[in-house]
Amino acid sequence: MTRIACRQLAPRIGDLPFNRELSAAAIRDAAGADVIVLPELVTSGYMFASPAEAAAVAVRPDHPLFAEWAAAAGDAVVIGGFCERGDDGLLYNSAAVVDRGGVRAVYRKTHLWDAEKSVFTPGDRPPPVVRTSAGPIGVLICYDLEFPEMTRLLALGGAHLIAAPVNWPLVERPPGERPPETVIAMAAARVNRTFIACCDRAGTERGQEWTLGTAIISPDGQVLAEAGEGAQATADVDLLLARSKALNSRNDVLADRRPDLYSPLLHRRAPS
Amino acid sequence: MTRIACRQLAPRIGDLPFNRELSAAAIRDAAGADVIVLPELVTSGYMFASPAEAAAVAVRPDHPLFAEWAAAAGDAVVIGGFCERGDDGLLYNSAAVVDRGGVRAVYRKTHLWDAEKSVFTPGDRPPPVVRTSAGPIGVLICYDLEFPEMTRLLALGGAHLIAAPVNWPLVERPPGERPPETVIAMAAARVNRTFIACCDRAGTERGQEWTLGTAIISPDGQVLAEAGEGAQATADVDLLLARSKALNSRNDVLADRRPDLYSPLLHRRAPS
Repeated sequence: MTRIACRQLAPRIGDLPFNRELSAAAIRDAAGADVIVLPELVTSGYMFASPAEAAAVAVRPDHPLFAEWAAAAGDAVVIGGFCERGDDGLLYNSAAVVDRGGVRAVYRKTHLWDAEKSVFTPGDRPPPVVRTSAGPIGVLICYDLEFPEMTRLLALGGAHLIAAPVNWPLVERPPGERPPETVIAMAAARVNRTFIACCDRAGTERGQEWTLGTAIISPDGQVLAEAGEGAQATADVDLLLARSKALNSRNDVLADRRPDLYSPLLHRRAPS
Repeated sequence: MTRIACRQLAPRIGDLPFNRELSAAAIRDAAGADVIVLPELVTSGYMFASPAEAAAVAVRPDHPLFAEWAAAAGDAVVIGGFCERGDDGLLYNSAAVVDRGGVRAVYRKTHLWDAEKSVFTPGDRPPPVVRTSAGPIGVLICYDLEFPEMTRLLALGGAHLIAAPVNWPLVERPPGERPPETVIAMAAARVNRTFIACCDRAGTERGQEWTLGTAIISPDGQVLAEAGEGAQATADVDLLLARSKALNSRNDVLADRRPDLYSPLLHRRAPS
């Protein structure tokens, strides 16, 4: 079994030292977990007033905070969001995959949300599937999840778990309904028969409230665990279940695809 | 405003005369609706014991029952499933789009479910977007909906509404949760900002129960109307809302796509 833990933290905007200790402590607290997911931009906060404010807390993947994550992680794999300064001088909304060996991969969010477009440059590489001690883990960040192409390509790339640091701004929804982002993640898990672990953030920041949508989702599309403000969602799962894509003896969510039928049409950019 | 009606009928297996009258009566009953959606295989029933049984009730698109649908429809557009005999002699699980002008389009289900594979040949054409009096309508059938590529290509093709005749076998789900197929349709509506109208069937057939999952879903991914056994779900909607793909002033669910990033990867057939 693999224990997945998502810690719904409340970072402080622009306070790198605070967030560095907050995230390392959360990883230590999750001792016993095999995979630990932290929120998007957990090292920096989200509601930047300007690119300069983001630049002031941007770090490179060789920053010592990642060595702290690795040390705190023990045998676990950590996936957490950070504000990245690229070697090109540009800022990226990124996620690092860290284990005992250090930073294993960095993914730069490819679909930027709203005001992020004023601060960050979108990544130009597809999301990685990282072979970890817990199995193959794919990485997405927040709004990326709303593109079924992204979850699909990670499933096709062999991911058993999609780990998604998110910051989901609270939006209106009918009473009794799940947050729309959760519904999208549940559907993505089910149509790809992968686990998905979304780690949302907590704490009102510059007036912005969050959905508190942290959820660990099974390949059936069911929510196995959620978390309150500042709390941890934990689920013990058999990630190998995501290796089989079969729905029954004759249906398989990937083998049943008809790529020759849709690929030419999916390349379009706008309604015809 | 456009009135969408989905009639959750219970056809009788192998009884073409009964189903012909049942479906025509449902269309007449829906007078005042602009778009009427009927279940998958409404002319034939679903639980065929053999291909021969299906062949016995298979019809061509020039069968008089479609003229009856057209006459009953008045100014409305009807989308309903039927067991099609192709000019090639093969059987298809198809849906017809019918209006005052007759059969406007036939779509052959491209993703077959379970025992359908013993009876039907999968279609080899992408689903159509039909320009109707109510606006552009895309067509899918049941399991097709579980392929996000299909809903996406209909949105890219300009569909404001995706009409989906379905027969959803009842599957277990946690208490308080929506059927997984509905969750998938809600997500598909939201990530494409299209309306989706799923018309399920009713009536136990050869021991098979159905989800009764008929649902009309908004571009926000919310269920606007559902239906009980044999009943009609009805919603009055502004289909033009689906023309805008904007989520805010800087995000658009189609324009934000990165086809150059994912297209090469989506062509894969199985996990790498």
